[in-house]
Formats: sequence, structure tokens, C-alpha cells
Amino acid sequence: MSALANAQYLFDQDTRLVPAGPDLVTVQLTDRWNTASGRPNGGYLMAVGVRALQQRSRFRDPLVASAFFLRPGAPGPARVQLETARNGRRTSTGEARMHQGAKEILRVVATFADLDQADGRTLSLATMPDLPCPDELMDPLAGIALPGVTVADRVEYRVVQPPGWLRGRPSGDPSMTFWMRFADGREPDLLSLPFLADAAYPAVMELGELPSATMELTIHLRNRPAPGWLACQITTRHLTGGFHEEDCDIWDSQGTLIAQSRQLAILP
Amino acid sequence: MSALANAQYLFDQDTRLVPAGPDLVTVQLTDRWNTASGRPNGGYLMAVGVRALQQRSRFRDPLVASAFFLRPGAPGPARVQLETARNGRRTSTGEARMHQGAKEILRVVATFADLDQADGRTLSLATMPDLPCPDELMDPLAGIALPGVTVADRVEYRVVQPPGWLRGRPSGDPSMTFWMRFADGREPDLLSLPFLADAAYPAVMELGELPSATMELTIHLRNRPAPGWLACQITTRHLTGGFHEEDCDIWDSQGTLIAQSRQLAILP
Repeated sequence: MSALANAQYLFDQDTRLVPAGPDLVTVQLTDRWNTASGRPNGGYLMAVGVRALQQRSRFRDPLVASAFFLRPGAPGPARVQLETARNGRRTSTGEARMHQGAKEILRVVATFADLDQADGRTLSLATMPDLPCPDELMDPLAGIALPGVTVADRVEYRVVQPPGWLRGRPSGDPSMTFWMRFADGREPDLLSLPFLADAAYPAVMELGELPSATMELTIHLRNRPAPGWLACQITTRHLTGGFHEEDCDIWDSQGTLIAQSRQLAILP
Repeated sequence: MSALANAQYLFDQDTRLVPAGPDLVTVQLTDRWNTASGRPNGGYLMAVGVRALQQRSRFRDPLVASAFFLRPGAPGPARVQLETARNGRRTSTGEARMHQGAKEILRVVATFADLDQADGRTLSLATMPDLPCPDELMDPLAGIALPGVTVADRVEYRVVQPPGWLRGRPSGDPSMTFWMRFADGREPDLLSLPFLADAAYPAVMELGELPSATMELTIHLRNRPAPGWLACQITTRHLTGGFHEEDCDIWDSQGTLIAQSRQLAILP
């Protein structure tokens, strides 16, 4: 799926990169991906970094990416400085540093490969969440106004029952399963997964907490997703001194595991 | 626990850093941490990188570190180039690049904080593995010769029953729980956890596979460990085209979660 083929979609418009030097690209971050913080979603920034690295990688498929969120971003122009760490025969690794003004807001290291060459053993010991068809489920955000949370307009969700926190009754269980897709019909691909893995509300809200801030997020990309809805399972197990992990496993509409992410976040 | 206080232990001797410039330290990697590959364990290299970053960090406690293993290391001298990404009021983030000869073998980004200031909510929804006292358990490596696998001499393990792969009968279940500690009596601390989290044999060996190679490892450090044995739980759930994750949760002897790591590895 080329960038050109997706030019009508907001994700591709808002991650479009303009060459500005041999190792420099610029991007116009928009206010269409804002979270409750009034700032762009971290996964959106990370997706920009991974896309920038992919454009100069020898291999097309991001395999693993780790992002450190150094400062909050803001809608507006950003510069992404690129560097190659290693160009190997089967993988390549690079680093992207995103700046706004004089401040570095994001640092991403990512390794790329060609997943068509990944012909080793496949075995899954965990299956996708047992969710009814999306058509039979509810949109948890239907009729809910989230002023300023523009990222909620970019993604559609389907759930078996509405989140407890949204009804003022947190369930006490910081885990959730749901279907997810881009609201404008864009199909998922490896480049959009760093965003999608961070697009849902934090599971700790079911513990009565306010949304936490991501400090670091690592994502493993396993397979190119088939078109259609994505099945997601998000889990937090350990809150220690205000820090917590959040694990997100994502399967495509064919039941294939396509990504696993884990982030370290801190409560406000 | 200062480096000086631990000077009699091999981990501290073999991760000792010598200043070589304003942003450069050198280290003598030894052959005492070799895996079955005949190369130094990746976690050992990562621990060197994290230690180098800690020495110039405003804060003492590593909180999250991500390492990309670019090329195999070798016993012998290595240079570690250091750079500060951000020095904030509550955290600092830096990057270390380890070179041998002209080749970069490892890149680590890590964020440091002061865990004494982590006074937010604590809640654990998963408990430590239900293991009998280490004294009641067996040493899985007793009487086993692993020529050249020197890292097996650095760490002691205690298990309920010996691993299936070691008896030529892989169990088919790539998960395991065990106790672990340094063999020479060094107590665990945050700086040694990047090594310890990668010190056990890969869980995929219970699927009949040979040891895999780590491509990337991220570790979250949650609490400073109490002295004594560490309880570990290692799990792999998804093998896709030869790639797999390996999750490792570590608790200290008091039952406190101290670290979570996840790596992406590839079968040989």
C-alpha cells in the first residue's frame, strides 16, 4: 500500500514528510490527533518517526520500534533528523529525532526487514479475543462529546459493553478487548500500527485514574495486517508508585497476530 | 549500593568504565558472560550501556531502557559514546552507542529517575510465581557441562523440575518460573537487572528450538530489589515466521515486582 494510494486519508495527509536536507524531513503536525491532554497523541508522533525512517530504509517493513517521549508535542511544524545505525543484509536500523523549535520531543529507534523473507516457524499460544462481529457490537463513543479530543474522531471502536469509567463506574479491571479501525476507511498497515497501538484510552481509567502519560513505547510488528477491523487486547497488571505498563496485542480481521506493544506510562 | 562496595564481584569488575573523553568511556568486555553463541550475552552489553548512562545522569535509578543489538559483540575492548537527550526536573534520558573497532554493536536509550520520588498509586494485579523456597528446589545445571557457556557460571538457578529441553524432551510450553541470583553472592540492583533479565535460556527451547538471538530488549525497572533470590517468570506466546517475543517479569525476595522486560528475538 503506497503513500500515494492512501493520499485521500487523514493519517497519510497528517504524516506527510517533506525532504529538507540529506538527513532531514519536515512534517506539519495537525490538531486532528489530540488526546485529552490537548496535545497530539504519542502514537501519532511515533508513526511520523517510523514513516520517516522507512523512507530511507533498505527494507520496507518495520519490525520493532522504540520511542521515548521526551516532551509533549504541539500541532504545528516539526523537524525529523534521521540517522542510519546499521544497514545489514536482512535488517536495517535507524534513528529519528523529532524537534519542535529547539526542543527534542521524540526519539525513535526502529529496525526494518522484509517480512516476506520471514519464513521461520509460526506458532501461536494465545488466540485473538473472543469478540462477536463488530456489526453486533456497540460504539462506546456514540452520543458522547469529548471536546478537543480529536483523536476520538479518527478511530472507530466496537465493544461488547461500554467502558465503566465512561459511565462513572470504573470496573476495577484495567484490561479490555475491542475492535478498532480508522474512521475514514483507511485500511491498517504496518506504518499505522504505532499510532493505532496507542490510540485507545488507557486501561488504568478502569481503576478510576485519569489518563496517564506515555514515557516509552515499544512495538513489535509481526505480520502485515489484512484489511478490515483490528481486534485488540489491552492489559495493565502492575501500578508501582504511579508508573504502569500497558500491553496491547493486535490481531487482524483474519485472526493473525500483527503487533504487540508495551508502554511505560505515569499517572498524572 | 555503590560501585566501590561491589568491587569484589565479577559483574562490577566486568562492567567497569574508564573515562576516555567528555562523552566517551571504555570498557573491557570479558569472556565470562558468553552464551552458547560463544559471544557475550546481550544483557551484559546492555548493562554496560545503562551503567555508562547512569554515571552522567542527574538521577540514579534507571526506569526504562531499550537496547538494539546491531552486531554480535566479542570479548575485548569496547568504546561507549554517550549523549544526553534531555535533562528534566524529574527524569533524564540519554543514549549510549557501543563500538568495537569501527562497528557499532549496541545502541541503548534509557530514562532515569529517582524512585524515592515515585509516590503514586501502587496496585498489583499479578502476583509472583508460586515457587517453594529456593533451598527446597533443584539446581537445573547441577552436573551439566556447558563448555564455553561461561554465563552459566555467573548465575545460579533453582527450579521445581529440570527443563525438558535439557533432558532432550522439550515440554512444548515456552514458559518457565524459577529463582535466580548471582553465583558469587552479589546482590541484585537496578543496574544488574538488564543483564539478569536476559540471563536465562530462551523459553523457545521448550519448543525444541535452538537459542534465538535478541534483536531488541526493553526493560522497565519498577522498584529497587531487596537482597536475596529473584523470582522470575518468562513467557513466549507468539512465534511468527521465526520471530518471537519473550516476556520476563522479575520479583524480589520480598515479593515486590522489580522489573518487566520484553525482547524481540529471531530463531537461528
